[in-house]
Amino acid sequence: MDLNADLGEGFGAWRLGDDDALLAVVTSANVACGFHAGDSGTMRRVCAGAAEKGVAVGAQVGYRDLAGFGRRRIEYAFDDLRDDVLYQIGALDAFCRVAGTRVRYVKPHGALYNTAAVDEAQAAAVVAAVVDYDRTLPVLCPPGSVLGQLATGAGLRAVAEGFADRGYQASGALVPRSAPGALVKAADAVAARAVRMAVESVVHTVDGIDLRLPVESICVHGDTPGAVELARGVRAALEAAGVRLGAFVQPA
Amino acid sequence: MDLNADLGEGFGAWRLGDDDALLAVVTSANVACGFHAGDSGTMRRVCAGAAEKGVAVGAQVGYRDLAGFGRRRIEYAFDDLRDDVLYQIGALDAFCRVAGTRVRYVKPHGALYNTAAVDEAQAAAVVAAVVDYDRTLPVLCPPGSVLGQLATGAGLRAVAEGFADRGYQASGALVPRSAPGALVKAADAVAARAVRMAVESVVHTVDGIDLRLPVESICVHGDTPGAVELARGVRAALEAAGVRLGAFVQPA
Amino acid sequence: MDLNADLGEGFGAWRLGDDDALLAVVTSANVACGFHAGDSGTMRRVCAGAAEKGVAVGAQVGYRDLAGFGRRRIEYAFDDLRDDVLYQIGALDAFCRVAGTRVRYVKPHGALYNTAAVDEAQAAAVVAAVVDYDRTLPVLCPPGSVLGQLATGAGLRAVAEGFADRGYQASGALVPRSAPGALVKAADAVAARAVRMAVESVVHTVDGIDLRLPVESICVHGDTPGAVELARGVRAALEAAGVRLGAFVQPA
Amino acid sequence: MDLNADLGEGFGAWRLGDDDALLAVVTSANVACGFHAGDSGTMRRVCAGAAEKGVAVGAQVGYRDLAGFGRRRIEYAFDDLRDDVLYQIGALDAFCRVAGTRVRYVKPHGALYNTAAVDEAQAAAVVAAVVDYDRTLPVLCPPGSVLGQLATGAGLRAVAEGFADRGYQASGALVPRSAPGALVKAADAVAARAVRMAVESVVHTVDGIDLRLPVESICVHGDTPGAVELARGVRAALEAAGVRLGAFVQPA
Repeated sequence: MDLNADLGEGFGAWRLGDDDALLAVVTSANVACGFHAGDSGTMRRVCAGAAEKGVAVGAQVGYRDLAGFGRRRIEYAFDDLRDDVLYQIGALDAFCRVAGTRVRYVKPHGALYNTAAVDEAQAAAVVAAVVDYDRTLPVLCPPGSVLGQLATGAGLRAVAEGFADRGYQASGALVPRSAPGALVKAADAVAARAVRMAVESVVHTVDGIDLRLPVESICVHGDTPGAVELARGVRAALEAAGVRLGAFVQPA
Repeated sequence: MDLNADLGEGFGAWRLGDDDALLAVVTSANVACGFHAGDSGTMRRVCAGAAEKGVAVGAQVGYRDLAGFGRRRIEYAFDDLRDDVLYQIGALDAFCRVAGTRVRYVKPHGALYNTAAVDEAQAAAVVAAVVDYDRTLPVLCPPGSVLGQLATGAGLRAVAEGFADRGYQASGALVPRSAPGALVKAADAVAARAVRMAVESVVHTVDGIDLRLPVESICVHGDTPGAVELARGVRAALEAAGVRLGAFVQPA
Repeated sequence: MDLNADLGEGFGAWRLGDDDALLAVVTSANVACGFHAGDSGTMRRVCAGAAEKGVAVGAQVGYRDLAGFGRRRIEYAFDDLRDDVLYQIGALDAFCRVAGTRVRYVKPHGALYNTAAVDEAQAAAVVAAVVDYDRTLPVLCPPGSVLGQLATGAGLRAVAEGFADRGYQASGALVPRSAPGALVKAADAVAARAVRMAVESVVHTVDGIDLRLPVESICVHGDTPGAVELARGVRAALEAAGVRLGAFVQPA
Repeated sequence: MDLNADLGEGFGAWRLGDDDALLAVVTSANVACGFHAGDSGTMRRVCAGAAEKGVAVGAQVGYRDLAGFGRRRIEYAFDDLRDDVLYQIGALDAFCRVAGTRVRYVKPHGALYNTAAVDEAQAAAVVAAVVDYDRTLPVLCPPGSVLGQLATGAGLRAVAEGFADRGYQASGALVPRSAPGALVKAADAVAARAVRMAVESVVHTVDGIDLRLPVESICVHGDTPGAVELARGVRAALEAAGVRLGAFVQPA
C-alpha cells in the first residue's frame, strides 16, 4: 500500500506544512509545481529529499491561481488546461532529474482534482498532458472517477486513492465538507480506517454499511502539526497490521 | 552562421512580434518560458513550428517579472536565480518533447542577459542551472562576457553572438542606447554589417576602426513589422554573400 | 446616450487596442484595474486622457487572472470576490484623483460580467464592493440582469447597456458566439442598430421581431483597428440622427 | 512614542506573523498592499482590526514581487515605481474607508525600504506617489535617509524610526546582518534599548559610543512567536518607563 501526501506547498517566504516530517512518513510525495503553490527552490529541496529517502515524486498540478491556492474552479479551455498541466510536469521534472530521479506520476490538486473527477473536458485535458509528456506515468485519482476512466481509456494507468480521515457515502462519494460525518478526527479511528482500506479494501460509510473501496494509495495530510501526527499514526497502524508500504511506482 | 531571434513573447491575450514570420527567417529561436513572457499555449505553438521548420529551440530564460518583461534588473540570490532558470528550462523542454525536439541551448533575456554578461554571481547561477539540467546545452551570450567565461570554465560551450543593428565601441561593448550611434537603422547598412560579421568576423565601430568580433550567431529582432523586414534583409544578404546559414547546434 | 468601451487593457510591454483613438469616440471609459489587465502606468495614462477629454472613468473590474484575461469563470467565494473588486476600485481611484477626477461607475469585465449577469452570489459580491466603496457609483450591466436587479435592490443605480454589434434573441439574451447571427459585422448595420437603440429603444432580433431594449449606454469595442472605425461610425451615426451623446454620470 | 510593525503579510492560503497579537501591541500598523504580500481579504481584516483598536494604518508599499517577498532590489524606472506605489496606496485606502479610517502614512517595505534610504531615484519615486495621493501623509523611514530628505524637501513629513533589536554603527547605519552585533536578541536588552531611544534619543553603538538617534517611532517585528513576545516586552518596558505610547498621526 502507498501513502501519499501533498508537499512543497509553500511559496517564497511562505511555508505550509512540514515537508521534512512528511517525507519520513509517505511513500509518494505530490509536489506542487508553481501554479497554485511551490516555488523553484522548494521544488528542488523536496525533490532532493524525496530522492534521498526513496519516496516517489508526483507532479501536483493545479490551476494557475496562487491567490486561491488552486482551490477554486476555473473554467479553462481544453487546450489551455492541457498546456498548463504539461508546463508544470516539465518544470518539476527538471528538479527531479537534478535529484537523480524523475516525475513518477501525476495528481491534480484542489479544485482541479475535484473537477477532473467529474468533468469530462477537464479530465481529458489532464490526461492529454500526461499522454503528451510520458505515457508511463500513472494518474492518481478517486476510484471510479471520470479522470480515472479517461486515463484508462487513453492507455494510462489510473491509481485509485482513499482518504482515511474523510467520511464516505454508500455511493462511494465523499461526504461533503458541510455535512455531518465529513471528517474523521479521532486518530485511532483514522488509523483503523486506513488499515481496513489496506487489508480488506473496505470503508465503513456514514450510511452504516461496509463499502468495497479498492485503492492502491491512501492520502494523508500534513498542513498542521496535528496532521503530521495523524499521518504517523496511519503509517504505524498499517505497519503493525503487517501491511507492506511502498510506492505504487518505482521511486527512481 | 546562425540567425537567432526572440520568439513566443506574448502572454495570454497579448501578442508581441510575429512568431510565424520569424520562424521563416531564423535558424535558432529563443523561446520565452513564462517568467517574463510566454504562456504555455504559445510555448507549444512555437516549439511545434520550430520543429517543423528545423529551427533550433533555445530557452529564453528571464527574471520572474511579467510586468517588467524581464527588462529590469533584480538582485536575485544565487540559489533563487539558478532554480528559476532551471524551472524555465524544464518547462520549455516539455513542449519541445511534444514537438519531437528538445531544448537545444539557453539564452538569458533582457536584464538577465545584460547582468549575466558582467556580474559573476548571476552568470554563475545561469551556468549552474544549465550544468544541472544538461551539460551539452550551449549558452548564447556576448563575446568576451563573464557569462561566456564562466560557461566555458564549467565545461559548457559558450556561443558568441553579434548584433547587426547595434553600434559597437572599440572595446567590443555595445554603444549605450542613450548615446549617438546606438542603433543602425538603414536596412542595407544592417545587412552589410551582418555580412561583414559573418564573412570577415569584423564590425566597424563608432570609433571608426574595424574590430575583430568572432561570432557564431547573429541576433535579429522581430517585435515590429519593420524589424521582420530587417531580419529578412539580413538573411537575404547573408545568402547572397554565400554564407551558409544553419543553427549552431543540431536542431533536433 | 452614452458610448462606453474597454480601455487600458495592455499590461507592461504588451498593448491591446488603441486607447487614444477610443478616448476620442466614447463618453465613458471602462479602465482595466490590474487583475486581468492594466498596469499602473497605463491606468495613470488613460485616467489622465479621460479627464482631459471629459470622458467618465469606470472601474473595469475582473477576476485575478492575467493569463486568462479575465475571460474564464472562476468560482470565487463571496468574500474573496467582493474584496478583490473593492481592491481594484480603490487602486483605480488613486489614478483618477491624480488626474483630477474620480471613479464614476463600475463595470465587471469578461467572465465576471457574464457570470454576474446570471449568478446571484457573484452579482451580490460585486454589489457589496460598490456599496462598501461608494453608494453613488452606478453599475453598468445588461438590461434585466441579476446584477442589475441586485444593484437596484441595494440602492445602487443600475445602468443598462446594449451592444450594437451583437445579435439579440427575442428573450433579450445575446445570441451565443457559436451560433449564427452572433455578430453584426457590416459597419452601416452596426451604426443603424445603435441609432435604433438610442432613438427607439428597440433592437431587431434574430427571430425577426423588434424587441424593446431600453439602454442608457451602448458598448463599442476597440481592440482591432477595424473596431475603432466601427466605433467612430456608431458615434457619427448617432450624432447625425440628432442623438445627444454624453456620459450617464457627471464625468468629473 | 509610536510602535510600528508589519502586518497583513500573508497571501491567500499562506499566513505570516500573528496580526491579532501585534494589533494589541503596536500603535501603527504597516499593512502590506498586495504587491509583495497581502491579499484583499487580509487587507480588509487588518484594517478593520486596526480601526477597532485605534491603531493607525500605514501603506506598506513594496516591489511587485510575491515570490521574493519584496526583499530583492528591482531596478524600476522612476515612473513605474511611482505608479506601482500609488496603486498600492489607493488599493489599501479602499479597505481603510470601509473600516471607517484612512491610510495615514506610507512605509516602504524590504528592499524598497533599503534602496529608498540611499537611492535618489527610488526615493523620489516614493515621494512622488505620496505627493500625488495625499500631501498630508507622512513617510516612515530611517533617520537621515535620502528618502527622509527628499520627503521633507517635497513638503512631506518624514517620520524617523529606530530598531531596538538591531545593532547600530557610530555612523548611524545599521550593522549589516552578516556582521557581529547585527541583532540584539536578549529580550531585556531589546527593551532597554527601546527605552533609551524613547527617553534619551540615544542608542549604544557596536563601536561602544552613545549615538544620538532622535526617532518618533520604534519598529518591532512579529513574524515569529518569539518576536511577538519581544514586542510585548518593548511595549511593557516603555510603559513602565513612563513613555506615553501613541501613533505619530491621528489614527482616524
